[in-house]
Amino acid sequence: MIKVGVVGGTGYTGVELLRLLAGHPQVQLTAITSRGDAGMPVADMFPSLRGCVDLRFVSPQEARLDQCDVVFFATPNGIAMGQAGALVQEGVRVIDLAADFRIRDVSEWQKWYGMEHSAPELVTEAVYGLPEVNRDRIRSARIVANPGCYPTAVQLGFLPLVEAGVIDLSGLVADAKSGVSGAGRKAEVHTLFAEASDSFKAYGVGGHRHLPEIRQGLAAMAGTEVGLTFVPHLVPMIRGIHATLYARIVKPVADLQNLFEARYRSERFVDVLPSGSHPETRSVRASNLCRIAVHRPQGGDVVVVLSVIDNLVKGAAGQAVQNMNIMFDLPEQSGLEVVPVSP
Amino acid sequence: MIKVGVVGGTGYTGVELLRLLAGHPQVQLTAITSRGDAGMPVADMFPSLRGCVDLRFVSPQEARLDQCDVVFFATPNGIAMGQAGALVQEGVRVIDLAADFRIRDVSEWQKWYGMEHSAPELVTEAVYGLPEVNRDRIRSARIVANPGCYPTAVQLGFLPLVEAGVIDLSGLVADAKSGVSGAGRKAEVHTLFAEASDSFKAYGVGGHRHLPEIRQGLAAMAGTEVGLTFVPHLVPMIRGIHATLYARIVKPVADLQNLFEARYRSERFVDVLPSGSHPETRSVRASNLCRIAVHRPQGGDVVVVLSVIDNLVKGAAGQAVQNMNIMFDLPEQSGLEVVPVSP
Amino acid sequence: MIKVGVVGGTGYTGVELLRLLAGHPQVQLTAITSRGDAGMPVADMFPSLRGCVDLRFVSPQEARLDQCDVVFFATPNGIAMGQAGALVQEGVRVIDLAADFRIRDVSEWQKWYGMEHSAPELVTEAVYGLPEVNRDRIRSARIVANPGCYPTAVQLGFLPLVEAGVIDLSGLVADAKSGVSGAGRKAEVHTLFAEASDSFKAYGVGGHRHLPEIRQGLAAMAGTEVGLTFVPHLVPMIRGIHATLYARIVKPVADLQNLFEARYRSERFVDVLPSGSHPETRSVRASNLCRIAVHRPQGGDVVVVLSVIDNLVKGAAGQAVQNMNIMFDLPEQSGLEVVPVSP
Amino acid sequence: MIKVGVVGGTGYTGVELLRLLAGHPQVQLTAITSRGDAGMPVADMFPSLRGCVDLRFVSPQEARLDQCDVVFFATPNGIAMGQAGALVQEGVRVIDLAADFRIRDVSEWQKWYGMEHSAPELVTEAVYGLPEVNRDRIRSARIVANPGCYPTAVQLGFLPLVEAGVIDLSGLVADAKSGVSGAGRKAEVHTLFAEASDSFKAYGVGGHRHLPEIRQGLAAMAGTEVGLTFVPHLVPMIRGIHATLYARIVKPVADLQNLFEARYRSERFVDVLPSGSHPETRSVRASNLCRIAVHRPQGGDVVVVLSVIDNLVKGAAGQAVQNMNIMFDLPEQSGLEVVPVSP
Repeated sequence: MIKVGVVGGTGYTGVELLRLLAGHPQVQLTAITSRGDAGMPVADMFPSLRGCVDLRFVSPQEARLDQCDVVFFATPNGIAMGQAGALVQEGVRVIDLAADFRIRDVSEWQKWYGMEHSAPELVTEAVYGLPEVNRDRIRSARIVANPGCYPTAVQLGFLPLVEAGVIDLSGLVADAKSGVSGAGRKAEVHTLFAEASDSFKAYGVGGHRHLPEIRQGLAAMAGTEVGLTFVPHLVPMIRGIHATLYARIVKPVADLQNLFEARYRSERFVDVLPSGSHPETRSVRASNLCRIAVHRPQGGDVVVVLSVIDNLVKGAAGQAVQNMNIMFDLPEQSGLEVVPVSP
Repeated sequence: MIKVGVVGGTGYTGVELLRLLAGHPQVQLTAITSRGDAGMPVADMFPSLRGCVDLRFVSPQEARLDQCDVVFFATPNGIAMGQAGALVQEGVRVIDLAADFRIRDVSEWQKWYGMEHSAPELVTEAVYGLPEVNRDRIRSARIVANPGCYPTAVQLGFLPLVEAGVIDLSGLVADAKSGVSGAGRKAEVHTLFAEASDSFKAYGVGGHRHLPEIRQGLAAMAGTEVGLTFVPHLVPMIRGIHATLYARIVKPVADLQNLFEARYRSERFVDVLPSGSHPETRSVRASNLCRIAVHRPQGGDVVVVLSVIDNLVKGAAGQAVQNMNIMFDLPEQSGLEVVPVSP
Repeated sequence: MIKVGVVGGTGYTGVELLRLLAGHPQVQLTAITSRGDAGMPVADMFPSLRGCVDLRFVSPQEARLDQCDVVFFATPNGIAMGQAGALVQEGVRVIDLAADFRIRDVSEWQKWYGMEHSAPELVTEAVYGLPEVNRDRIRSARIVANPGCYPTAVQLGFLPLVEAGVIDLSGLVADAKSGVSGAGRKAEVHTLFAEASDSFKAYGVGGHRHLPEIRQGLAAMAGTEVGLTFVPHLVPMIRGIHATLYARIVKPVADLQNLFEARYRSERFVDVLPSGSHPETRSVRASNLCRIAVHRPQGGDVVVVLSVIDNLVKGAAGQAVQNMNIMFDLPEQSGLEVVPVSP
Repeated sequence: MIKVGVVGGTGYTGVELLRLLAGHPQVQLTAITSRGDAGMPVADMFPSLRGCVDLRFVSPQEARLDQCDVVFFATPNGIAMGQAGALVQEGVRVIDLAADFRIRDVSEWQKWYGMEHSAPELVTEAVYGLPEVNRDRIRSARIVANPGCYPTAVQLGFLPLVEAGVIDLSGLVADAKSGVSGAGRKAEVHTLFAEASDSFKAYGVGGHRHLPEIRQGLAAMAGTEVGLTFVPHLVPMIRGIHATLYARIVKPVADLQNLFEARYRSERFVDVLPSGSHPETRSVRASNLCRIAVHRPQGGDVVVVLSVIDNLVKGAAGQAVQNMNIMFDLPEQSGLEVVPVSP
């Protein structure tokens, strides 16, 4: 059994991680820390976990995280960079669900995240945890930077096209839509039910923190810079991301459908739908799947890719567990064989 | 492995049954019938099942249901009564998720369901599949009448009070609320999103088919007739039932909380919450749990019980699987250890 | 034109009041105060009001409320009681949408609201603003205590039965359901979209502040104390209250339907639906109507009343405007002739 | 008073038209036809209209539409083209809310709508009813083709850019999102609450009927063909359209914000939001407004326009009333001064 610690288990990625770890056959959950709620049974905060998770939140000091095999950080940005160094020194592997280790250019990170980075040397070492791209490097990583939710959906959607070199990389458009859980479990007016329900809006059009992460990922695939317009939107639903991706085809491509199917044939968690499909976010609800459909409207030169994930699973906690499975040589789907819940 | 057939897998209880059976370690799903959709891959109708259920719908003739160990009927009312007889003759056990075998008084059934009953002798034999009441009889049953969704939530909520004989049975009130999936997957105007969303209403106040079922169950527990007012309501949510139950206490009862906890101590799927709790339907979403809280407002003589289930799981497919587990001496929670999905 | 001031316009009752006042032909909106947001254009906080309300929030000092004809308090509990006295001294009439003047028994009020009442003498003078009961006294009132949302729906539903003396007053049950806007525009975790959506729960079963208000109102109608169990629930919808009311009939009543129709025949804002109806909350969305249906299931001795309102209109801002219209001898429906918005 | 007839008042655009006409000071509603529901009081089908609309549905024969001043067709596609000719012969003006007269190229129309057009000569005569473009021609039109919902939001968003000639017209992208009421009031599985709620999907990526309508409109503004990719999506909300529009700027433009503000300065129903804004669909709920924000992310060469409308109002019934007001020289906002309902 792998001994697992979770730092910061009081947000949505935290409770989702606990849901998945509670059902993981090779995991022994040893500690969940929360500075503010130490002493409270986890199931008192999250009644859905009654009978599944019997731990109490503990303070970071009590947690003895140094005795874990792996520690997940489900914390706000800026926490993991302060604690990961000491843990890896002790031989504990770290998976950060926040953004501390995602952007390789530290000054770029500092610009978008508005704080000083306290551990640039760990950024260099950390592996970006998108298994479909970096599986081998994840296997041996001491620190995994778990990707953001939008970046996961967008990168998996563009990946086959970018790798194949068939699209104009200067004018990509990613029009992305997220359920409200993506905004976290903070008490804020704009995500109240009476504000966010029965309405729809874009946000962050001027610039969103996931933009540099996506650009970095696409550039790495392409071997060159990309021009990307990224517009996120808020959907009145709890979970789910739907990315609608637009690119101009600039090289003849025999069969777009086949391009996607071939690229993802051996990927357990990427499902390329039949030609002409329109994936719904609910078709992946509570599961670690990314479902993708590719279209070429009216046979023109524009390719439209539809990519859906559950933002809390493949977009956060599930991908983190997938990364753990890879790091510890477990079956990649261990603990992740949840059938999507629909309706 | 138990060979399982499903008749009528195109509604919500059907797809939910498939979700649970797909993850059940002792089940081999052998046939799913649909007269209208024979030939279609199940996963084409329900994309959430892609990669989990590889069968196609087959016509009833092709299905060879007589070679199954157990057949679930997830059909409209009136279908199972025509086919169950032949199956049990062949040694196949039957679990009916519809209402054909729920009401012991056939004339009463005919009044509420508006059709002739074609197999009254099977009604006599059938066992009402509420495990918390009838576990032993379910074990050996050839035909199990799986309870309705409202009846499950209401009966489990009243059960300890009725058995203890502490309430006035002449004036019970069950104010129940259901998510829209309870209305099924039929195309109807009043359950369209634009009709049912952002609104709330009662329905069937004059009389609902679950009323005689609940009355029969409570009367069986009490050993006498009960007076019950039952008002169902439609909630703009997909899954979940919340029953708010009112009764007048007529005998001194030392500790209501303890009464409930003692009654359900050994029940894996009934969770009595701590005193003062208010269970949310989402705390059981996708799971087979019934969570119950009991209140005595201002210490008066009225007891208020709050009982929540997922209508598609403990209120339908999950309870059916629980019944199957009991019938085949499997661990009762086999295939049902799904952690509730929340948020 | 009546000069109107609004104190505390940043919550949901505040913005709703502004929506209605902006369309009121006899109203001149002169000041909207907000301590925290003074200087901000109202339409910056509430973009729905762009082009309809051109005022900025002002601090209470600048507001010159003493020059208004009427001042609405759309403030948290405890504010109006500190300011109403000075205003009525200046001849300004006051309508309090909070609870400061609703409960005649000041010690009872203090118990439920957890604070000292600073103006008990104004409680004595204030008129409870339920026009269907107190129209004449409202006409000349200097201070109107605008009823709570649940109390409006529940009292209007029970009113004809209580006045007619046909029900057992010792065992009333009010099972009430509210949209989430009823919880206000405060940033709190439990009313976040991802918490309150796709779920349903009761709350405050042990005791809710609207209980003493409803009991006081029913007792006043009945001329005697009443025994009431009141359970509020949270519905995943923005607006609307649905009260399901249960009582036992103890005196022969020829025609329940007629009893209700006769009582409300001349009431512009109470609509008794045809026998057998089930009002939906959306049928009154954005309007000042209360729609009621009365049932007697299976001809038994239990009467079930269904009463729906828009909690922000008839349950708050609309009723406040109705009270203003009465106080200033305007047509009672002035500014309130909004056709319900459905779907 | 203008005598108004409505053909086909049983869908969402029909009931919305009735809501607006019921509050219109210069309108006398004389007949609402429905073949299937003749005889039924309109308010029985739409309880929200109780007390506001006292008519019954009548059969087309009884309706005496030839005595109306104007007839609205809120019918399925293909109905108005059969009846409009006779009406205009009688001097009755016609506003078609369906698509019969929207596409000038009849063979193109026949391709997208899958039926023969029975009155091509009326297509030639009809005026496309987008007041912000065609106000003068609408004034004298006998037949107005009321625009589609998506086409309204998309055209108003692109209009200032296209007229100014500053964008590359060959690679426009319109990523549009609609509430479920846009699918109409037909009973269909995919728009059931339990299907469409808490989920998000694209549809019609291969080709949607509004594509040729938008292309025709943009081409008319530009004086040349345009290349447009249009992807509609279904949002789990009742009302509202949000169009996110992408174009590449190819000519220097001093001030995008000013370009939009100048273009719409005198338009009562188009509201250009301050720079940096993100309009929410709820900010126009129940009103005839289109709110627009224009962005230029990171100062690059891509312009992103956000355009929101209520699909049933500015996207259908409200725009139809606006057209009627123009045709009959009424104040353009008559009957349309509804303050948006928010929250």
